[in-house]
Amino acid sequence: MASFTENHPGVVADAPAATRGFVFNHSMLRVKDPKVSLAFYSHVLGMRVLRKLDFPEMKFSLYFLAKLEEGSEVPQDVGERTQWTFRQQGILEFTHNWGTEDQPDFRYHDGNAQPQGFGHICFSVPDLAAAVKWFDENQVPFVKRPEQGKMKDVAFIKDPDGYWIEIVQADLLANLGR
Amino acid sequence: MASFTENHPGVVADAPAATRGFVFNHSMLRVKDPKVSLAFYSHVLGMRVLRKLDFPEMKFSLYFLAKLEEGSEVPQDVGERTQWTFRQQGILEFTHNWGTEDQPDFRYHDGNAQPQGFGHICFSVPDLAAAVKWFDENQVPFVKRPEQGKMKDVAFIKDPDGYWIEIVQADLLANLGR
Repeated sequence: MASFTENHPGVVADAPAATRGFVFNHSMLRVKDPKVSLAFYSHVLGMRVLRKLDFPEMKFSLYFLAKLEEGSEVPQDVGERTQWTFRQQGILEFTHNWGTEDQPDFRYHDGNAQPQGFGHICFSVPDLAAAVKWFDENQVPFVKRPEQGKMKDVAFIKDPDGYWIEIVQADLLANLGR
Repeated sequence: MASFTENHPGVVADAPAATRGFVFNHSMLRVKDPKVSLAFYSHVLGMRVLRKLDFPEMKFSLYFLAKLEEGSEVPQDVGERTQWTFRQQGILEFTHNWGTEDQPDFRYHDGNAQPQGFGHICFSVPDLAAAVKWFDENQVPFVKRPEQGKMKDVAFIKDPDGYWIEIVQADLLANLGR
């Protein structure tokens, strides 16, 4: 298998045995208003909420979302579902610090304005044109439509907090960066 | 299946048909020095590089990494591998803007200092104590060790750019947030 991955300066030849079973589980974004974010991610992007965890003494809640594959079997038992959630790849976690939704001027930093760091999350879709039509029907703001800019066939939309979401169709990108 | 996911204010009851085939593919972080980041993520976390894409006219490169499951079959053909990469869940993308590695004072924003937004990525591991030992052997800095703070059995380490990486063991967290 190692022959099908790439070696670049810094990369060790093989994954150390100590890392066996490690899973890149999730990325966490803070959100101002979970009701608005959950509406966007469940409707526009089709994600499901696997778990909401509340921490009243620290006044925050966590939401773990997944874009489930067809036929995914998510455990019904709450404790089992929590464990299952932490074993998956591709989970999106939201942190809601209670009360931010009631502060009119409150907003989070998208990472693309200065100071930069985190850039975006990305969804791949089976049909980019159909996805663009779907986003337009849902009044989703675009940072960049597929036909704009130097990188064709790549779109960026904004979520309710202003975080950038890249949208790609895998088979259109076979020659990207070559 | 919908009965095993959670409905909270904002969540639509079912994923719309227009979102069928959508995949949460990746999260992107800017990195100062890819050689250093690739050494860390390939050795300490066992990730592999699926594709490096160069954009000389815009003076940046992209790296797409995955923590592959045992027995994953990654296409050898470059074009096929690019497409395969964009169809997966749980990809980590690095953006390297050329030259940042040569600027001594250059650093990216981790999202946890002000202004806040993105918070962290997370790896789940089969054995938290063994993982902590592995990180210590590799001189990885901790933001929080498992026994520190209010949330026991959850650790946070720092990557070379200072981004936070949560480390969890799924079966220790069955009762988290309850």
